[in-house]
Amino acid sequence: MQGNMMDVPLTLPFILERVRTQYAEREVVSLVVGGRDEAGQPVPQKHRITYGEVADRALRLGAGLQALGLNRGDRVATLAVNSYRHLEAYLGIPSAGFVVHTVNIRLHPEQIAWILNDAGDRVLLVENLFAPLIPALRAACPQLERVFVFGPTPTPIEGAEDYDTWVTSQEPLSRYPQLDEDEAAGMCYTSGTTGNPKGVLYTHRSTILHSLATAHKDALNIGERDSVLPIVPMFHVNAWGIPYTCAMYGAKQVYAGPFTDGPTLARLMQDEEVTLTAGVPTIWMGLLAELDRAKAAGQPYDLHCLQRVLVGGSALPESLIRVFEARHGLHLAQGWGMTETHPLGTVSTMPPGVDERSDEGYTLRAKQGRALPLVFLDLLSEEGERLPHDGKTMGRLITRGPWIAGSYYGGEGQQNFLDLDGELWFDTGDIATLDERGFMHIQDRAKDLIKSGGEWISSVDLENALMAHPAVAQAAVIAMDDPKWDERPLAVITLKPGQTVTHEELRDFLAPKFAKWWLPDATVVAESIPIGATGKFLKRELREQYRGYGSA
Amino acid sequence: MQGNMMDVPLTLPFILERVRTQYAEREVVSLVVGGRDEAGQPVPQKHRITYGEVADRALRLGAGLQALGLNRGDRVATLAVNSYRHLEAYLGIPSAGFVVHTVNIRLHPEQIAWILNDAGDRVLLVENLFAPLIPALRAACPQLERVFVFGPTPTPIEGAEDYDTWVTSQEPLSRYPQLDEDEAAGMCYTSGTTGNPKGVLYTHRSTILHSLATAHKDALNIGERDSVLPIVPMFHVNAWGIPYTCAMYGAKQVYAGPFTDGPTLARLMQDEEVTLTAGVPTIWMGLLAELDRAKAAGQPYDLHCLQRVLVGGSALPESLIRVFEARHGLHLAQGWGMTETHPLGTVSTMPPGVDERSDEGYTLRAKQGRALPLVFLDLLSEEGERLPHDGKTMGRLITRGPWIAGSYYGGEGQQNFLDLDGELWFDTGDIATLDERGFMHIQDRAKDLIKSGGEWISSVDLENALMAHPAVAQAAVIAMDDPKWDERPLAVITLKPGQTVTHEELRDFLAPKFAKWWLPDATVVAESIPIGATGKFLKRELREQYRGYGSA
Ligand SMILES: Nc1ncnc2c1ncn2[C@@H]1O[C@H](COP(=O)(O)O)[C@@H](O)[C@H]1O
Repeated sequence: MQGNMMDVPLTLPFILERVRTQYAEREVVSLVVGGRDEAGQPVPQKHRITYGEVADRALRLGAGLQALGLNRGDRVATLAVNSYRHLEAYLGIPSAGFVVHTVNIRLHPEQIAWILNDAGDRVLLVENLFAPLIPALRAACPQLERVFVFGPTPTPIEGAEDYDTWVTSQEPLSRYPQLDEDEAAGMCYTSGTTGNPKGVLYTHRSTILHSLATAHKDALNIGERDSVLPIVPMFHVNAWGIPYTCAMYGAKQVYAGPFTDGPTLARLMQDEEVTLTAGVPTIWMGLLAELDRAKAAGQPYDLHCLQRVLVGGSALPESLIRVFEARHGLHLAQGWGMTETHPLGTVSTMPPGVDERSDEGYTLRAKQGRALPLVFLDLLSEEGERLPHDGKTMGRLITRGPWIAGSYYGGEGQQNFLDLDGELWFDTGDIATLDERGFMHIQDRAKDLIKSGGEWISSVDLENALMAHPAVAQAAVIAMDDPKWDERPLAVITLKPGQTVTHEELRDFLAPKFAKWWLPDATVVAESIPIGATGKFLKRELREQYRGYGSA
Repeated sequence: MQGNMMDVPLTLPFILERVRTQYAEREVVSLVVGGRDEAGQPVPQKHRITYGEVADRALRLGAGLQALGLNRGDRVATLAVNSYRHLEAYLGIPSAGFVVHTVNIRLHPEQIAWILNDAGDRVLLVENLFAPLIPALRAACPQLERVFVFGPTPTPIEGAEDYDTWVTSQEPLSRYPQLDEDEAAGMCYTSGTTGNPKGVLYTHRSTILHSLATAHKDALNIGERDSVLPIVPMFHVNAWGIPYTCAMYGAKQVYAGPFTDGPTLARLMQDEEVTLTAGVPTIWMGLLAELDRAKAAGQPYDLHCLQRVLVGGSALPESLIRVFEARHGLHLAQGWGMTETHPLGTVSTMPPGVDERSDEGYTLRAKQGRALPLVFLDLLSEEGERLPHDGKTMGRLITRGPWIAGSYYGGEGQQNFLDLDGELWFDTGDIATLDERGFMHIQDRAKDLIKSGGEWISSVDLENALMAHPAVAQAAVIAMDDPKWDERPLAVITLKPGQTVTHEELRDFLAPKFAKWWLPDATVVAESIPIGATGKFLKRELREQYRGYGSA
């Protein structure tokens, strides 16, 4: 029996209308490039605009794209930093019936061109900082019809036009197209550490549901009175959906543009009374150094508004959570997700009765958290059997929900999707445990697991423990080949300035926390650890370099 | 272009699974009838159960209904107070593929029978308190196959069985049916102050979306660490959806059963550390008297956990908001909705920069608030033209959204639904204003508006102002017939104990706040004001009684 409810699709114009009317006065603050210093480095300049103006410009952008003759569902790419212009693209492109395809600016230009071609993008919006890429992209991507540049450039660019001039010359869209909620609204490519990147098309429905679910106080905790600084880039999985969530609820947005150094971020958080910020662990290392410095200099930042620092993208060591809390009273919370999960799947919040600053609290906060509403998580054995949720048994993490991918663009990567009792699940490629209360704890990427004598060793646990050692700056633990055990763990570390440490000291440091057979057999002190386009360690490269280390 | 997201329907088993696993240890506390006192009145007794147990019993209930041979979409009625058993029905009936039809116990038995017949209910779950109704309902509703009684009865009841015995003898449902999100999950009838009550069928989708949207901190603010006491009855529009919202987020639920007197409620809130409670204005009058009494007696209740008191169902006078804040530090917030809106459409929360305890804050809190995400509001003139949102222009309030009814059961009441530019809207029958920031302010029910010389006078505004007078306990303002002006306002009031007031004193009291032609022409002091089944003034009856008062 059907119900009596209206058939109102969940689509992005709803968010755009909300900022255009209810939240028209609320501000969006962006650091943009205001010029260059003596060394030729970009200098930040603050830009303020209201949501009402953003909405107006987004509607002009939508109308402009329609006027170019784009067809429903056509892809429009962005190669841009976090700013109000990127927000206009987030809102205006899908509301006019097109797909906003955010491209990772940290990729190699050839990979960018490959992705633009694969997605079939017809229009490209490029940050002025990356304008030098345009000629090469133009040459490599013949189906690209128009290129518009965000912000001024010293000289006109061959084959590109000024975005502001174009957008402001349009009349605002006067009527939204009739959108279906299952139509594509956004597109992101996976980072593709193995094989070619794969495209994921988010729908209007998944974007609206993700925004509703992540805004809750037991998730990101975003409401109208918040001021939110997403440091996670808007070119990477929709900046964890934060621009949409903030717009839906009228939170002020603060964007750092290309300026992600500790001092600029700390100052911005203080001045804009930021209540929530979000980014990958490496960003917080930089911020910590700056906060420590300022405090030692007797001029600490005033961050009393900052209630929560959301960390995701790779595992967050418990030691870092404790240090932020102890030295600066700042609360780090962890989230987990991936391109295929829109991205938020879990957030670490405390169940009632657990004090966040107790040992149990810190242990739970070092886990990836519990599933958001509407997201299901489960564990599979190598044989495809469901495993117990006991907090101990490791298995392949699978997930299912209305904002989880059920396929890739063009039908790639079928092997990542599986049918269990008639239900579709996505295989995350992560190895995790789940406990009785639903806390999920990532142990490793399946491909980074170390298989010693047929048993699994979690590199992530060892890395987090190593990073708590006072001499260690960064640590990656990888498998090296071993004639007897197949694989054995090798620690690759970088040192903090002026520090030294021996392999034996590190083993002694780890010994109380792990079974003996988990302890690394050797330690390599490296100058640096290679980092990929999304800020994560490139373990694949390390593994190539060091796989023979044991037998050398 | 379709997206790549999984096709995962929004259905109630998701909520049931969440309480069964993630929140299994969280409690549900109910006051049940533990016996009778000397006067034969029910005496409360506290009952505690975990969500895990509720989920288990809900699954047994679902399996039991399937075993009775019910077909997908069949209606199962409840006639019950707020308790864990009613929650089992909320979760178990729709998750097994049936529709939970909550029937208002305050209706006349003949009306109840009419509604059971209209809905075609095959099974009825009745609170033991109302067991005396069973024989008459059995006789009047031949299609009713089985009746189960919640809680013990002194003697077995002809034609009815014990609910607990039946449910606990079932095996839990082992697999949910494949539900479509647009299938009906719940059913409520409108209060039907004009004509027969009309049925509204909520869908799985609307229930899930309503739960997601109302949990947000800028709405009800319900999360895992909350303890929530819905005083609004579960037989009336799903208790504003609170049982579902709490279950989705793992909040503790506290139910007062049939005990809604001030002392019992105050004590329950204190002992169960309630953080949020919700009910109609009349309940809060009762609570206020008890809080005042206890404070004067030097034994105030400890309600420091209580962050918010949600008030809806009829307008909340500003004076009551101020009194609660000033005398007891309690924060009243207003919500608006109706059976056809699931029910929450608006909640009054403060925009940034407005202090809740400033004059502007109190004025805004006396309005009904702003639309929840995904809900659209608009105003129509009598000619069907859209009216400006300027905070002054009154119009018929229309609404549209995924949890707003688009029709009634059986196609009744078509005139309440309208098409505007190809979009379906529901005409609420309320007269309201909307301001630039989206604040909605109910002026009247369309049928209660007073039309004096062709202009509208809002009875609600006058009532709220009258109730701020120290001598006035309750006030209803209605139209009396007038030969010259067609209609003129008449105030019907009840007095506080030991107080008196004259019509002239009341006019002088109102004069600074209203245009002269708005002031009531006469005042009637009554013993009481009739109240209907949903706790609202029965203005229709007053109007019948007093329409000729002016010419008498
Ligand atoms: N906060 C409120 N202020 C004024 N009227 C309200 C409020 N909430 C609900 N109502 C009235 O109650 C009606 C719905 O009644 P019902 O369908 O029985 O819940 C609405 O149409 C309004 O007239």
